[in-house]
Amino acid sequence: MSMTSTNDDVLALAQHLLACPSVTPATGAVFDALEAMLTPLGFTVDRFLAGESPDGPVENLLAWRTTGPGPHFAFAGHLDVVPPGAGWTSDPFAPEIRGDLLYGRGAVDMKGAIAAFVAALGALPDDLPGTISLIITGDEEGPATHGTLALMDRMAARELRPDLCLVGEPTSSARLGDVVKIGRRGSVNMWISVAGVQGHVAYPHLADNPIPRLVRILTAIEAEVLDEGTDWFQPSNIEITDLEVGNPAHNVIPAGATARISIRFNDRHSGASLIERVRAIAAPEGGTVEAKISGEAFLTEPGALSDLVRGAIRDVTGVETELSTTGGTSDARFLSRLCPVVEFGLCNATMHKLDEAVAVADLRALTEIYARIVERALR
Amino acid sequence: MSMTSTNDDVLALAQHLLACPSVTPATGAVFDALEAMLTPLGFTVDRFLAGESPDGPVENLLAWRTTGPGPHFAFAGHLDVVPPGAGWTSDPFAPEIRGDLLYGRGAVDMKGAIAAFVAALGALPDDLPGTISLIITGDEEGPATHGTLALMDRMAARELRPDLCLVGEPTSSARLGDVVKIGRRGSVNMWISVAGVQGHVAYPHLADNPIPRLVRILTAIEAEVLDEGTDWFQPSNIEITDLEVGNPAHNVIPAGATARISIRFNDRHSGASLIERVRAIAAPEGGTVEAKISGEAFLTEPGALSDLVRGAIRDVTGVETELSTTGGTSDARFLSRLCPVVEFGLCNATMHKLDEAVAVADLRALTEIYARIVERALR
Repeated sequence: MSMTSTNDDVLALAQHLLACPSVTPATGAVFDALEAMLTPLGFTVDRFLAGESPDGPVENLLAWRTTGPGPHFAFAGHLDVVPPGAGWTSDPFAPEIRGDLLYGRGAVDMKGAIAAFVAALGALPDDLPGTISLIITGDEEGPATHGTLALMDRMAARELRPDLCLVGEPTSSARLGDVVKIGRRGSVNMWISVAGVQGHVAYPHLADNPIPRLVRILTAIEAEVLDEGTDWFQPSNIEITDLEVGNPAHNVIPAGATARISIRFNDRHSGASLIERVRAIAAPEGGTVEAKISGEAFLTEPGALSDLVRGAIRDVTGVETELSTTGGTSDARFLSRLCPVVEFGLCNATMHKLDEAVAVADLRALTEIYARIVERALR
Repeated sequence: MSMTSTNDDVLALAQHLLACPSVTPATGAVFDALEAMLTPLGFTVDRFLAGESPDGPVENLLAWRTTGPGPHFAFAGHLDVVPPGAGWTSDPFAPEIRGDLLYGRGAVDMKGAIAAFVAALGALPDDLPGTISLIITGDEEGPATHGTLALMDRMAARELRPDLCLVGEPTSSARLGDVVKIGRRGSVNMWISVAGVQGHVAYPHLADNPIPRLVRILTAIEAEVLDEGTDWFQPSNIEITDLEVGNPAHNVIPAGATARISIRFNDRHSGASLIERVRAIAAPEGGTVEAKISGEAFLTEPGALSDLVRGAIRDVTGVETELSTTGGTSDARFLSRLCPVVEFGLCNATMHKLDEAVAVADLRALTEIYARIVERALR
């Protein structure tokens, strides 16, 4: 397969990326392939490793092309994939077309979209002013500690700051273009611990069982209503995800008990405000709270960027797009600190599953939509 | 040390037993020693192994002497000891007298009491009619599955059934004779499990989190008042001793959650009635209950046996005895199925601790008390 002949064919580009095994964290060959696709298009490519064990090193790729004064539009995404698992019909890293579908791990999440980025860029008119960049990490499916965040540091050092950003995550549901994400809920995990005094169950007056106090805290947390949702977000939600005492002795009152909770929250809250709220619930029972904020909620208010994306989708597919903030977190939570961000990509029905596959027609339509988005963003 | 010269000296007998390492389950030498003490006193000795791995084999010793028609009085106890642990002043299995105390693992729990059994039997008048037996296991400190229960089977096969039984556990607290146990609470452990449907915390509507349901069950259990206590028992008590979910993934709603509870209960309840009660609490939330009854509550109503023991204690020591049902379980829970049982032995301050020790004076006083108890029981 020669690069020159495939640079304008999204199917060939996708096959090329899918043929490079890149279970998270991805390094090496899959980045070589992308770099080889971008340099003929006039992009400057900066690849670098970030982080150390256990969350690194992670390979990242920043590419940019400036063709004159104008806005800066960024595509963002990742080349790593989740492990394929056993039971595929064909080799997950030997892309195969069967019927109308292209099979391979990453077909929709999200090497297919990255192939569409490249094919769209190859199809742009030559006279577009402004800057186009690609912000591509090898670690979105893993800890994501040294991926997009490291790319943002790299961009700051190079004084590259996008005005608009599109993340190519597979947001489409039943049909290509039916869903675009304009925000994501935030996420925070907390560990609520209660210390007691160990003792023998036959002499409870000499001990202090921490479990009833933890149960009272959890009862209060379950009774919390964080909000009723907003125009753009569903209600914030608390799940208790783990309980741990680790007491093997049947006749012993344990010395401590811990619960873990996970909160997905909308833009009415911040991670810090929720931590304070849980601490206030836990404190009367002697509970202490450790917390890790995975991401703050963000919202790109519906407006110019979402209108532009919806218009391009409508023109190519005729589909009316729903703007959504549902689902898990993505790297858009980081990029939203820089500029308005939307997420739009392929249909997500097979992502992370066996026999992940993309419709070849969707790859071609997505390429056309992406090309229109960039052209309209820079004009 | 010759057996003939030591058979009437409780201190020498105790030293002989303490010199035989017998961490639970005990076998061999310590039983050889006891057998050699009993045969000169005219006892028939039946030693046997019971059970298989992992709770066995366990060595047990049944001894009896019938000197004519009359009541059957039984001494019961164990030759196994808990592990000594590190940090003893002297070798835990090389008994040593320092000051007024005899040191060694098992000094009070309960080789000292078994030495007092033997010394008391050696001091009895020759003309006592009736039967005296010793029911001695090598596994009271361990699972106790193949110890006293196996001895009771052996006794049934030999049609030996005591009318009164004294277990030589160290019941004394501040002074020898201040506490005699006339009952014990029962003990039951239960595992309450709630099954849910695993899912991603971002999509809770697609999952069913079992933890809030378990928390509601535990809240209801904490609110239970089993009873207010009785004339002879403290209130029954429930402790939640463990919580387990085992969910390493922060973003996953787990498929199941389990709590373990331990109930110590008085004779208002049975293990089975409590299991039904907890099942009725758990069922509305979809909780299931597994249970293991360690022992039922028992009470030897204050009366002839306790009066006899208190009188003997008062005569020898001047101490007024408190009748108690507090504390953990003991093999008396099994023996109480056969006949009235009391537990009385040495001071328990050092039992299971480093530098376990018994006052030599207490050994001598206990021998005298035991001798009076047997004599009065058989007269």
